[in-house]
Amino acid sequence: MRLSTLLGPDLKAVLARGEEALRAALEDVHAEDIAEIIEDLELEDAVTIVRSLPADRAADVVERLPTEIQIAVLGAIGHVDAAEILVEVDPDDRVDLVQELDESQRESVLAALEEREPEIAEEVRELVGYDPETAGGLMTTELVQLGPETTVAEAIAEIRRLSDEDEAETVYYVYVVGYGGRLLGVVSLRDLILAKPGATLSQIMTEKVITVHPGDHQEEVANLMARYDFTALPVVDDHGVLLGLVTVDDVVDVVIEEATEDAQKQGGVVPLEDSYFATSLREFVWKRGSWLVVLFMGQLLTATVMRRYDSLLAQTVDLVIFIPLIIATGGNAGSQSSTLVIRGMTLGEISPGDWLRVVAKEITIGLALGVLLAGLGFLRAFLEDAELDAFALSSAVATSIVAVVTLASVVGSVLPMALKRLGFDPAVSSTPFIASVVDVMGLMVYFGVATLILHLAY
Amino acid sequence: MRLSTLLGPDLKAVLARGEEALRAALEDVHAEDIAEIIEDLELEDAVTIVRSLPADRAADVVERLPTEIQIAVLGAIGHVDAAEILVEVDPDDRVDLVQELDESQRESVLAALEEREPEIAEEVRELVGYDPETAGGLMTTELVQLGPETTVAEAIAEIRRLSDEDEAETVYYVYVVGYGGRLLGVVSLRDLILAKPGATLSQIMTEKVITVHPGDHQEEVANLMARYDFTALPVVDDHGVLLGLVTVDDVVDVVIEEATEDAQKQGGVVPLEDSYFATSLREFVWKRGSWLVVLFMGQLLTATVMRRYDSLLAQTVDLVIFIPLIIATGGNAGSQSSTLVIRGMTLGEISPGDWLRVVAKEITIGLALGVLLAGLGFLRAFLEDAELDAFALSSAVATSIVAVVTLASVVGSVLPMALKRLGFDPAVSSTPFIASVVDVMGLMVYFGVATLILHLAY
Repeated sequence: MRLSTLLGPDLKAVLARGEEALRAALEDVHAEDIAEIIEDLELEDAVTIVRSLPADRAADVVERLPTEIQIAVLGAIGHVDAAEILVEVDPDDRVDLVQELDESQRESVLAALEEREPEIAEEVRELVGYDPETAGGLMTTELVQLGPETTVAEAIAEIRRLSDEDEAETVYYVYVVGYGGRLLGVVSLRDLILAKPGATLSQIMTEKVITVHPGDHQEEVANLMARYDFTALPVVDDHGVLLGLVTVDDVVDVVIEEATEDAQKQGGVVPLEDSYFATSLREFVWKRGSWLVVLFMGQLLTATVMRRYDSLLAQTVDLVIFIPLIIATGGNAGSQSSTLVIRGMTLGEISPGDWLRVVAKEITIGLALGVLLAGLGFLRAFLEDAELDAFALSSAVATSIVAVVTLASVVGSVLPMALKRLGFDPAVSSTPFIASVVDVMGLMVYFGVATLILHLAY
Repeated sequence: MRLSTLLGPDLKAVLARGEEALRAALEDVHAEDIAEIIEDLELEDAVTIVRSLPADRAADVVERLPTEIQIAVLGAIGHVDAAEILVEVDPDDRVDLVQELDESQRESVLAALEEREPEIAEEVRELVGYDPETAGGLMTTELVQLGPETTVAEAIAEIRRLSDEDEAETVYYVYVVGYGGRLLGVVSLRDLILAKPGATLSQIMTEKVITVHPGDHQEEVANLMARYDFTALPVVDDHGVLLGLVTVDDVVDVVIEEATEDAQKQGGVVPLEDSYFATSLREFVWKRGSWLVVLFMGQLLTATVMRRYDSLLAQTVDLVIFIPLIIATGGNAGSQSSTLVIRGMTLGEISPGDWLRVVAKEITIGLALGVLLAGLGFLRAFLEDAELDAFALSSAVATSIVAVVTLASVVGSVLPMALKRLGFDPAVSSTPFIASVVDVMGLMVYFGVATLILHLAY
């Protein structure tokens, strides 16, 4: 199935034989696979391949390249060729591409596009204004919209015309619009096939259409599509005027992209733009270093807390021995509850208004887990060959574990909700962040409990 | 758009007015929204609502309920009614439902189904055999398959017939099959609309069809669909015989489900079956507790390591002060690299064979990040009002930070790859797991470095 591996060795030879040979060799290869081949080539060879393809195929290939290579290829291929390819690219991808170009490239490509296809150029200028992570940034304007009195036969003729001109990306639905472009209803291709040729669209359309607004975040759009099992979702403005269409294939990409971003945030990394190997060292140091420095600053508090209790610590090494165990256990419990709550909020299962229910649940779970682990901790501390009274030491360790695990479960769940309520992205309360907060708390609890118990014991 | 909130208050009144009134009130409500209403009701009321609906609508609603409630409703509604609803459920969801029923329920429902629709019952018995997380478990068998000599007009008539009988879930493609059910090609609805009525399918079909096997994992299927922007992917056996169809709406659900599982694993939780609030305390304690206990056992090693160095620790509190800072910093760096590598493997960007490239990259990044943080650590330790020589203490802290961050970056990236190579799920090397491993290593590095430097200094 993977043609790139088959083609790889022969590619150099074909490249040497010129554009005609290239075009013939690549004729039956899926655009995705050509894109994969290109990724591993020098820019010069990549440009040769893209140039050798008919404009519509070249567009299919360019759409599938990683951003960096897209920009490089479009830059190296010349403005006129680039504009020609852009004409063939799907409108939603076209806008993404233009958004990625740097200012000077963008202007000269748009100028070349204006000369060739003024309508497309205008549309791009309009769509470039939407945030790429919203329904507006995601939508395509290539769709079939017809009046309510259109007959089924006329609608089919129109689809045929648009298909010949290759102006409708993926037709699953015909949108029925009234005065001023207001969306009235929707007719599926299946409805069209099954209806009598003379029926009008208004007779067969579904009137209850679920729509999104151009400013809606892509994550909401994806959730809505997953919820209702749609293959395409119309985008309308405040007056119900049809602006475009978000298709399910873009939504699958969005869901994967959002999951990657969330995973990276959860791991304490500023989300990457590109894949692991495509990301430069410099970017890694920046995107990992900035969080590490913030977390390090927070962790400095642990040293301050420990210094405050240095007379306690100087008394005996016994207490010191259990410091990493106690704070790590708190960190683990906190990381669990924050993960569950952040994911729950992403999926819309938990909202900040549920905080009381969440806290109640986390206190119960935290206590149960705490008692479980405290049992193990008590045993381990009791077996320690300690200077301190074994029972006092074990009690201090066990009590601290119960308190720290419960506290960490609650903090790990409340912090993301509080951040969301305050308008921040809850995912910044990543696992390492929660662990840092919990470390400081854990030390204070442990030293507090130990002071009390040792005071009672001696 | 959310009708459940509108309907909520009046629902009790409508429920009291009987089935007819209910059916009328719910007529225009989307099945998803009815499902949401039901979720908040007592079982008795839920059953009343489901019973009031026509069987096909009832099926749409039941499909959208959380597993637990599905089972409860189907159990309470009686085997005959349950079988009647099952007939109307989409085949892929039907199998999932039957899989969730407990053994005795399953048998009596299947028996009732056998009486009513023997073919469907047989099909369910067959599909129940596939793992739900594979293409086989995900696929529907409701699809339109026709011979190569079928004309376009005949194909349209067949789609009409199947639609009337509601036997084709979502028709986007017609599959062309030859002798023994072998898949020959595919024709889209668009192709059908645009072709001449007298053309045969073999004339207009696309012959290069990308397919999956029933045993392929759902994550692979989802990646393939996202890659090639398909709306449906045929499932074939080793002989190319068409078995079923995976549709994109199921894939969106899969991608979300997998992202949730990955996030939970990353946070050190055994993946939940249901949403946060739908999960019982008992299940939480089990799914969080099992990991916490494992991690706790690992963390016990920190106490052992510390005890081995107790004479060093007894000398001065100065060294103790920086223990949490150093091990947490290592944990953070390790969590970053493991997150990036695990996600990269999930997306297919990194494979275990790349380990050398990854290690080289992580050593460089780890050194850069280590030096950055060591600078901060040196300053902080230097300002400490210490008994030890300030320069010796600061050097020990800074050197340890460089070593720990570098080591953690490498371990965090290599461990998931090694686990994958050994056939384990790399996601079990969750953030807390990496942190535990790194904590133990971090202590050993710190105490080793400190012993050396203090030995040199005094």
